[in-house]
Amino acid sequence: MSEVQSLTAFEAIKQQDREAAKKAIAARLFRSGIKHDEPVDLSYVLQEGERVEAITPDAGDEALDVYRHSTAHLLAAAVLDLYPGTQLGIGPSLLGDAKGGFYYDFVRPENARFTPDDLPKIEKKMRDLIKRNLEYKRLEMTKAEAAGKFKALGEPLKCELIEDKAGATVSCYTIEGTPFVDFCLGPHIPSTSKIKAIKLLSIAGAHWKGDESRPQMQRIYGTSFFSQEDLDEWIKQKEEAEKRDHRRLGTELDLFSFSDAIGPGLVLWHPNGALIRKVIEQYLNDELYRRGYSFVNTPHVTQSELFRISGHLENYQEGLYPPMTDKENEQIEYRMKPMNCPFHIQIFKARQRSYRDLPQRYAEYGMVYRYERSGVTHGLMRARGFTQDDAHLFCTPDQLVGEVLGCLDLVDAIFKAFGFTYKAELSVRHATDRNKYIGADDVWELAEKALTDGLNEYGLPYVRMEDEAAFYGPKIDFKVVDAIKRTWQLSTIQVDFTLPQRFGIEYIGADNARHQPIMVHRAILGSFERFFGILIEHYAGAFPVWLAPVQAVVLPISDRFNERAVQIETELKAAGHRVAIDTRSEKIGAKIRDAQLKKIPFMLIVGEKEAEAGTVAVRDKVKGDIGAIPVAEFSAQLKALNDSRALTT
Amino acid sequence: MSEVQSLTAFEAIKQQDREAAKKAIAARLFRSGIKHDEPVDLSYVLQEGERVEAITPDAGDEALDVYRHSTAHLLAAAVLDLYPGTQLGIGPSLLGDAKGGFYYDFVRPENARFTPDDLPKIEKKMRDLIKRNLEYKRLEMTKAEAAGKFKALGEPLKCELIEDKAGATVSCYTIEGTPFVDFCLGPHIPSTSKIKAIKLLSIAGAHWKGDESRPQMQRIYGTSFFSQEDLDEWIKQKEEAEKRDHRRLGTELDLFSFSDAIGPGLVLWHPNGALIRKVIEQYLNDELYRRGYSFVNTPHVTQSELFRISGHLENYQEGLYPPMTDKENEQIEYRMKPMNCPFHIQIFKARQRSYRDLPQRYAEYGMVYRYERSGVTHGLMRARGFTQDDAHLFCTPDQLVGEVLGCLDLVDAIFKAFGFTYKAELSVRHATDRNKYIGADDVWELAEKALTDGLNEYGLPYVRMEDEAAFYGPKIDFKVVDAIKRTWQLSTIQVDFTLPQRFGIEYIGADNARHQPIMVHRAILGSFERFFGILIEHYAGAFPVWLAPVQAVVLPISDRFNERAVQIETELKAAGHRVAIDTRSEKIGAKIRDAQLKKIPFMLIVGEKEAEAGTVAVRDKVKGDIGAIPVAEFSAQLKALNDSRALTT
Repeated sequence: MSEVQSLTAFEAIKQQDREAAKKAIAARLFRSGIKHDEPVDLSYVLQEGERVEAITPDAGDEALDVYRHSTAHLLAAAVLDLYPGTQLGIGPSLLGDAKGGFYYDFVRPENARFTPDDLPKIEKKMRDLIKRNLEYKRLEMTKAEAAGKFKALGEPLKCELIEDKAGATVSCYTIEGTPFVDFCLGPHIPSTSKIKAIKLLSIAGAHWKGDESRPQMQRIYGTSFFSQEDLDEWIKQKEEAEKRDHRRLGTELDLFSFSDAIGPGLVLWHPNGALIRKVIEQYLNDELYRRGYSFVNTPHVTQSELFRISGHLENYQEGLYPPMTDKENEQIEYRMKPMNCPFHIQIFKARQRSYRDLPQRYAEYGMVYRYERSGVTHGLMRARGFTQDDAHLFCTPDQLVGEVLGCLDLVDAIFKAFGFTYKAELSVRHATDRNKYIGADDVWELAEKALTDGLNEYGLPYVRMEDEAAFYGPKIDFKVVDAIKRTWQLSTIQVDFTLPQRFGIEYIGADNARHQPIMVHRAILGSFERFFGILIEHYAGAFPVWLAPVQAVVLPISDRFNERAVQIETELKAAGHRVAIDTRSEKIGAKIRDAQLKKIPFMLIVGEKEAEAGTVAVRDKVKGDIGAIPVAEFSAQLKALNDSRALTT
Repeated sequence: MSEVQSLTAFEAIKQQDREAAKKAIAARLFRSGIKHDEPVDLSYVLQEGERVEAITPDAGDEALDVYRHSTAHLLAAAVLDLYPGTQLGIGPSLLGDAKGGFYYDFVRPENARFTPDDLPKIEKKMRDLIKRNLEYKRLEMTKAEAAGKFKALGEPLKCELIEDKAGATVSCYTIEGTPFVDFCLGPHIPSTSKIKAIKLLSIAGAHWKGDESRPQMQRIYGTSFFSQEDLDEWIKQKEEAEKRDHRRLGTELDLFSFSDAIGPGLVLWHPNGALIRKVIEQYLNDELYRRGYSFVNTPHVTQSELFRISGHLENYQEGLYPPMTDKENEQIEYRMKPMNCPFHIQIFKARQRSYRDLPQRYAEYGMVYRYERSGVTHGLMRARGFTQDDAHLFCTPDQLVGEVLGCLDLVDAIFKAFGFTYKAELSVRHATDRNKYIGADDVWELAEKALTDGLNEYGLPYVRMEDEAAFYGPKIDFKVVDAIKRTWQLSTIQVDFTLPQRFGIEYIGADNARHQPIMVHRAILGSFERFFGILIEHYAGAFPVWLAPVQAVVLPISDRFNERAVQIETELKAAGHRVAIDTRSEKIGAKIRDAQLKKIPFMLIVGEKEAEAGTVAVRDKVKGDIGAIPVAEFSAQLKALNDSRALTT
């Protein structure tokens, strides 16, 4: 990667690596050794002291972002071609969004509307443009020229954007041979033939700038991938994810709901959902007590003073619920808590602590409140009130590695219990630029070393992420991989030097002097609500025996066996199992179908033979009929599955 | 009780019953058969159509209220006699207040202050006035006369009260032979010799009308009883209660705290307190699941709409935390929930319900928020955020008796588990005046009958309280009696006809028609926070084995036995016991004293002999040394005590 001058990015890359140049869709610009903020077009002309690298499809999100943004332009070009007079809104790429990989907002003349039937037609036009291998062209002009250009094109929304956002020089992009021009920073792919696999997905309502007082627009969602295989794989996963959608299953299995009278993002846990949650809580309680944690309970509301001290009031204003003004003293305001940490610190602070008392490990299933915009709340996945399985560890520097190891072992145990595999990322400081961090160098080194040593000692592979630490300390993040290969960020282990300092907490050391303890934030599930959403989709609603709200249902073949069925139900309940019974006067086939729909792991069928023999004919939801066995034997088998938290029967 | 005319109340009573007249301290006035709102003086002259009954000391609070109010007047008379020029504030009786039985507020001239040393002197003067058997005299005058009188007496605060509160005619009371006159509705005892036992208790700061911008006053608290024995008993109980004060024990045993940065009435549960709470929750979970309850979880915050529908917004405004104005739409406000009921109704409403689905029993440990004035919050007993062990039962009319029986059995089981005896009160409608209630007559009859039948069938003695039902339905209240004979209102079973109607909930009956379910509110502990406060005082901090945060502590006699002690700790922990260890290099006597202070039920002492024999020398916190036994045997004994929830060892 030698320095190049007066060449385009493409030419510079080609000089270095012909293969890379062939695959490149854009370039990564470096200036005096510092990574430039933005990638650039392949047509970019290098200046003195600049060098480039190729952005190729294997660059992940960085490549996908450019690629999909260019596909959005292609969509707009196709629409303008097919529907002249359509006004353009904006058209960004989307990464990791379930709705698609990009969208473009449109306003058709005279209230004309797109319908789903239009999508294949537009898609076909896009493919035509791809085949024609049309160039994406960057134009630079003055702000006034740009405003004049879009006015002439009949694009008032673009004019408004230019007025709001443009500097002295404005960049626009066209696609050669189409009427399309966009006010856009870029970069883009060099030409349409780079686009390999596209799909338009849906049409939704949208408002200009998200403002409901502004005219309604239509948003067309689509996606694109670097290969048809990737697109097919994504479509398959999306279909599978839709089948598993926790919102649909939540209603079908009577797990949770929302209420208009209560408001968006606030979850009502129904009996079945709350039962699963209680089983999970009980499991966590046992794990945590066994590992030397203490539980605490703290209020959900506080005078703002607490969050003034912690810095949240200043730095986290936007995420807070609105204030409540005290009725007795209007100088005082109350806030619902967005975090549990400062409360746990108050408990630590309530007594003098000695090094002998450390580590203190405070756990709480603490409800926190984040004022998400109502539009972005999404079922259990993004709620306004959610329950963190939060813990804060207060320890001496010597104890930190041990605490990290303890956390890693806990994460491992819990993820395995639910059948998740997982990946770890260690986020450390920037290699050289260290002004943005608070805390002394030696403490940072100690903490980064403790996290690294912990990971190595535990033998856990991880990715080291430079420059990804929080300003207050390094951390390890964990992502689980679910049954359909989606990854979800759940757990975090964060070392924090700020809050102990802000709250002035301390302990008396063996040397009789005062020391500041190290504080570790850690959450495993993250949020009970979101974790439950993920679990529902992971299991597709078919919870393993230890979590299933109903583990077995007794199905008498006819009313004649209801009495015996009730005996069996009673016996199994007395043994501590979660058992239901279906004594309706329905055919056994209908009862089995209902139990299957409710995803109950075992059906226990009782007819003449079983009633006489004291057995039940066991039907496994997955494996089907597995024969008649004595009730006590079934009970023992169920207990074994439950107690071992078996994931399959 | 024949009708009398032109007689005083005293004369009328004397005609009926000379003994009652002798004991009477005031009278209860009836007018045309309806109980008058206020009791009257014995000197009251009966009017046409009126009759009276004696209020004697055995009338309970009704008598004590008059008696203590008169004692407050006596206190003021004594103060004016000893400290001329003192201005009077107000002086009411207090019933059931831990601070005393009455108080009077004073302002001394020239910033003079009472000190505790003054109390015996004032008390002596009060006794002198009692001996002189001075008459309490009622004077009636116009408002202007009264204002003039108090102005002349140099009592500006009384003038202000008269201005604020007086009607056209004003009543005042004097005590004959003293300079004391008070603006007062009465009634009072006939003369000072009726007062048998008094005690002045303390001096506190107070502000006129509780307004901090008004001058500071001094409040003298005292109490009085109808006999010296009752007073002595009360003093003894008060001393015992002070020893058991949950706030002091809460700090000593590290159970909970409050934080200035968080604000008054918001509890931080420390590890030991939260552990006890978790054990209680676990016990309740088991009881409730066994009894066919479901748990649910609901948000702590809601749009006000929910409480507009329920009527709380209109009828319970004062108890609500201040509103939060939605950031997106200022028409919407949010409130922290003061009640769980409307949330449970939303869950009931989330699906169509059939008579087959009933009863539905939704339980939640639901945190609710009541904006108590900061001055009245009191430790755990009166908090601003507290956790109800709330449940709502939705049933058909036919099921109501069964549900009541279920609740009674649950109440009985739970109170027994904690070693409380209890009393029940059935609150029904007024016998004749029924305008104030909502709901149809036949539903009321059904509900009152169901509660009565339930109580009778369960064989639980109860007091029937006419006119004490809530406007929305009849109820049963339960009061527990603690270890020092204090009673605490905890549980309630309330039938509610209002909320099902307001929210329009319904089920499909066997007749295929829509019906409104009956809703029962019930809470057993009432609030976890307050119940925990009561438990701490009930046990004086010495929790029984099943609740103790640490059930046993291993105490090696010297460092030589630390290793063996750790083995024992590990073995007992593995068996599921809550065990601590004290390996400090302290004398065994010091370790035992510390364990006693922490009120740990068992100390397990390990020396040479025990280490060799594989035993522990068991010391019971109450019974003292009870000999050496093998560790496994102790473990089995501890398990038996824990599992049976034994209250003593």
